[in-house]
Amino acid sequence: MGSETAMSPKITVELLRQLRQAMRNARYIAEPIQAYIIPSGDAHQSEYIAPCDCRREFICGFNGSAGTAIVTEKHAAMWTDGRYFLQASQQMDNNWTLMKMGLKETPSQEDWLISVLPENSKVGVDPWIIAADQWKNMSKALTSAGHSLVAVQDNLIDAIWTDRPSRPSTPLITLDLTFTGLTWQDKITALRSKMAERKISWFVATALDEIAWLFNLRGSDIEYNPVFFAYAIVGMSTIRLFVDAKRLTRPAVREHLQLDTPPKAEMRIQTAPYESVFTELQAVCASLGPKEKVWVCDKTSCSLMQVIPKAHRAPVPYTPLCLAKAVKNATEIQGMRMAHIKDAVALCELFAWMEKEIPKGTVTEISAADKAEELRSQQKDFVGLSFPSISSVGPNGAIIHYRPLPETNRTLSQNEVYLLDSGAQYMDGTTDVTRTMHFGTPSAYEKETFTYVLKGHIAVSAAVFPNGTKGHLLDSFARQALWESGLDYLHGTGHGVGCFLNVHEGPCGISYKTFADEPLEAGMIVSDEPGYYEDGSFGIRIENVVLVVPANPKYNYRNKGSLTFEPLTLVPIQVKMMDTGLLTQKERDWVNEYHRQCRETVGAELERQGRKEALDWLVRETQPIV
Amino acid sequence: MGSETAMSPKITVELLRQLRQAMRNARYIAEPIQAYIIPSGDAHQSEYIAPCDCRREFICGFNGSAGTAIVTEKHAAMWTDGRYFLQASQQMDNNWTLMKMGLKETPSQEDWLISVLPENSKVGVDPWIIAADQWKNMSKALTSAGHSLVAVQDNLIDAIWTDRPSRPSTPLITLDLTFTGLTWQDKITALRSKMAERKISWFVATALDEIAWLFNLRGSDIEYNPVFFAYAIVGMSTIRLFVDAKRLTRPAVREHLQLDTPPKAEMRIQTAPYESVFTELQAVCASLGPKEKVWVCDKTSCSLMQVIPKAHRAPVPYTPLCLAKAVKNATEIQGMRMAHIKDAVALCELFAWMEKEIPKGTVTEISAADKAEELRSQQKDFVGLSFPSISSVGPNGAIIHYRPLPETNRTLSQNEVYLLDSGAQYMDGTTDVTRTMHFGTPSAYEKETFTYVLKGHIAVSAAVFPNGTKGHLLDSFARQALWESGLDYLHGTGHGVGCFLNVHEGPCGISYKTFADEPLEAGMIVSDEPGYYEDGSFGIRIENVVLVVPANPKYNYRNKGSLTFEPLTLVPIQVKMMDTGLLTQKERDWVNEYHRQCRETVGAELERQGRKEALDWLVRETQPIV
Repeated sequence: MGSETAMSPKITVELLRQLRQAMRNARYIAEPIQAYIIPSGDAHQSEYIAPCDCRREFICGFNGSAGTAIVTEKHAAMWTDGRYFLQASQQMDNNWTLMKMGLKETPSQEDWLISVLPENSKVGVDPWIIAADQWKNMSKALTSAGHSLVAVQDNLIDAIWTDRPSRPSTPLITLDLTFTGLTWQDKITALRSKMAERKISWFVATALDEIAWLFNLRGSDIEYNPVFFAYAIVGMSTIRLFVDAKRLTRPAVREHLQLDTPPKAEMRIQTAPYESVFTELQAVCASLGPKEKVWVCDKTSCSLMQVIPKAHRAPVPYTPLCLAKAVKNATEIQGMRMAHIKDAVALCELFAWMEKEIPKGTVTEISAADKAEELRSQQKDFVGLSFPSISSVGPNGAIIHYRPLPETNRTLSQNEVYLLDSGAQYMDGTTDVTRTMHFGTPSAYEKETFTYVLKGHIAVSAAVFPNGTKGHLLDSFARQALWESGLDYLHGTGHGVGCFLNVHEGPCGISYKTFADEPLEAGMIVSDEPGYYEDGSFGIRIENVVLVVPANPKYNYRNKGSLTFEPLTLVPIQVKMMDTGLLTQKERDWVNEYHRQCRETVGAELERQGRKEALDWLVRETQPIV
Repeated sequence: MGSETAMSPKITVELLRQLRQAMRNARYIAEPIQAYIIPSGDAHQSEYIAPCDCRREFICGFNGSAGTAIVTEKHAAMWTDGRYFLQASQQMDNNWTLMKMGLKETPSQEDWLISVLPENSKVGVDPWIIAADQWKNMSKALTSAGHSLVAVQDNLIDAIWTDRPSRPSTPLITLDLTFTGLTWQDKITALRSKMAERKISWFVATALDEIAWLFNLRGSDIEYNPVFFAYAIVGMSTIRLFVDAKRLTRPAVREHLQLDTPPKAEMRIQTAPYESVFTELQAVCASLGPKEKVWVCDKTSCSLMQVIPKAHRAPVPYTPLCLAKAVKNATEIQGMRMAHIKDAVALCELFAWMEKEIPKGTVTEISAADKAEELRSQQKDFVGLSFPSISSVGPNGAIIHYRPLPETNRTLSQNEVYLLDSGAQYMDGTTDVTRTMHFGTPSAYEKETFTYVLKGHIAVSAAVFPNGTKGHLLDSFARQALWESGLDYLHGTGHGVGCFLNVHEGPCGISYKTFADEPLEAGMIVSDEPGYYEDGSFGIRIENVVLVVPANPKYNYRNKGSLTFEPLTLVPIQVKMMDTGLLTQKERDWVNEYHRQCRETVGAELERQGRKEALDWLVRETQPIV
């Protein structure tokens, strides 16, 4: 993910004055609060958020993807992680203290609050944008030090944010069976049978991608993420969808949801305004029998969690929708294949074009990213990008979350390594691919490190492992060759990928950082993206999106069955960057077989689309290595 | 670990009657309890326990290493894991219900109690043998269902156990600097500086191996574990050792601990009876200043934890002694090397003997284990075995925790695979080694699976990884070759090993089952023991004890430094069992280099000891492979 790095700090003195006034204003709170916490999320645990939810950025100026601001009567501090230390220090003025998370000397938010607050303080937070589990921890720590955490229903940032954008309400897209493989009624039925199995009466859906997936609807409320603001509550004979009424006026949407020709009662969708979820959930909870349970994600907002009486809560780290969505059905898999072929067409065309243009000195990080978007947009059912393109050359490539801006924009040359991490949303699928290229002659060191990364990529992609294995157990395979040479990379190896949905999704992935991922299953889709970053010099990453498929090894221990991966991404990996002498025969075979698939499958589509130059490039780039 | 598998169930009807009577007896408890929990541990979180602490075995007959019994007015149930289902069902009579942990239909202890108890029940447990964290969870679950967990100070099993053995009080062994490298005073000073660093006033030591390590003392209170029953409390100027006074009468011990020539005040050890730790800790806690903290392991007994007022508790998963003990100093490493050379001498002699004797049909699992013990006992500073030998042939080899008993004892032959997992305690170190051998002609399948296990063993042993890497990240390396062929093994790959201490120790290890292990550091010692088990047919395991050492790869990413392993175990790995065609050149090189070290180092010692036949065997078994 990238982040725009505006280089001059935001002037916040007046905003802080106003916020501190609001913290004492009886219009918003019965009693003054001594501190106010501004988390970076929205009410749906979204990773990417809409402009109206960028409250932390509004108050302090820092616009990275992760960070929490806290304002007390005298202090203002903002916590973020190592990716953003430089950016945050440039974007915040000196009213703010940057709290560098992960450094030994940096206090936790709780400890810092306890150290600066007068006795018996009240700390406020908007209960809609703090997750239930975070609230619990913060509240416990403050209480044990004699303070209290209080829910401030009116968001105090919104109160002083005069030109706050309104919450988006983009038109809804309906997806038919040819894209989804299952009707929303099928999904409701499956959900209810899971509920019955676990003796659950109600399920509350709060994650936007889960709601979009459940109803086979998409929106564009959040950039790059085809979701829309909504909540849903599903009972054994009730379906409630909370969404802005305006969005339900289009005949296609009304028909899709069967709003005007109500089907049998248990498949009737009752719609209600987005904001009414709170009172509706209260009503549901008021009617609960003594043993009835409500299923909800443990990361849901504190507001909604607290509506559910403790005895009725059944919080889970991964909801049944999250788990069902992760295992793609045959139609979704077919769609993902098609999306990746189209995506490969665009990238072959791009790289063929770059090869010609770079020597002229006219291609920049930004123009290359723009060209990639333009070529993708020519493909069928293109909707938009799936995340901001990381188009980086030379030293910029070592900044893992780089995004080119006019002030950082470098011109591509035949002397530096180029890294492009980009992807798109198509109606039939989501893509995310990284290729690292050299358009001149790479150095021996660049080739060596590229080859270690490639060995790691292959080790994961070709791994065979028992059914039930969690992805985090595969992470070390990606590092083995780098480690052997004393090298490493400081990010995980892979994340789950949605199908025309969020490019990052749970509950599976490949990362040493987690232990709580769900076991990999056939039909799940993850990325495989080891890298190597030489600060100030270059960056390497090789990323494919891969599908979990059954494997058929020689034996079958305890009848457990085995799994492996099949690459969905079909873009050549630059042979020029490989030191083929470092590859084993098995690895060379893998490269040749992968390139054969690229040539065959993407070649056919390039031919069909009449893209002759890209086809020539593809054929040349996929010649077998020895 | 093995476990004696007596094959006829214990008759428990009368014992249960007595226990239920005790549960209502005002002599032990103010109010009757409706259930009594009998955990399997002792008051020190020991893995192996003394006979006087085998209360769960006493009440139900099951003598495996893990299991919890619960007796209510009407029911008696015992929870254990998959290793022990068969054994437990054979050892318990039909008054008991076997609760098979890990099966979907098996209720947790809490859920089961809640389902069988009348309203408002009291559940009793001895607070000395339930860990603080387990008490907390159990208490929470019971309370939320309207019951309560109560501490029963008199152990009710002890009350009905008329011939209960007394707590052992074996003579203490003092270890001088040539074995320990650090005096106990050095260790106290280091502990206090850790305490000062973390602003801790007191440390309570409850784990027996930590206390033995701290004072450079050993005992033999628990079979295989050279420890003694004790507690210790260390303050910034106080040292209290709680131990049976009889053990402190020997002049060597008194001198070692400087009991009669008291040194400067802060190094003066105040001794007190074992049982007085409770009242002494109460006295310490009564004197605490408002900000003073007491360091204690979070798995300490509920009894001791509750003595410490909540505000003063500083519970940790791994104590500073556990962490310090894990990183062996130069003297300890040297001792471990010597112990492993001596151990190898014994095993070379054993295998040379077996080769001659097996064809005669006179060698059994038990006689082989006895011979191994006899040969080990001839080595200098031999103290005893470090765990019950797993000596298993053919199908018995597939039982991971097998221990030969008269009724299971098989005769070794030239037709079956033999697995020996054994080790010893020497004054200078602890060993643990597994070799899998065939004394005739192994089948192609046996060789194939042995070779996959060997590839896994080498992959871990030769792994290079960054400083700070946790052992669990290496676990998959051990499985890669097995997985590729659809095979696996259902145990972890390695555990920490003590130095003339417990053969299993924390806080490091190599296992997919944990996430909470501490990072590997140079000086730590772990086992590397992948395996493969074909039920009803054979078992394979190849285990070395390995030392974590600095590695010097080509590069040094971010100056982090790299680590690798050096085998301490130096016993040939049987070439006859290898399908060398499946090994890579690198792996063949590893085998040859390993065997060169065995020949050189152990060969010299065999020569010195004049063990000619064993030397011939060693030389023959270490010929290079091609």
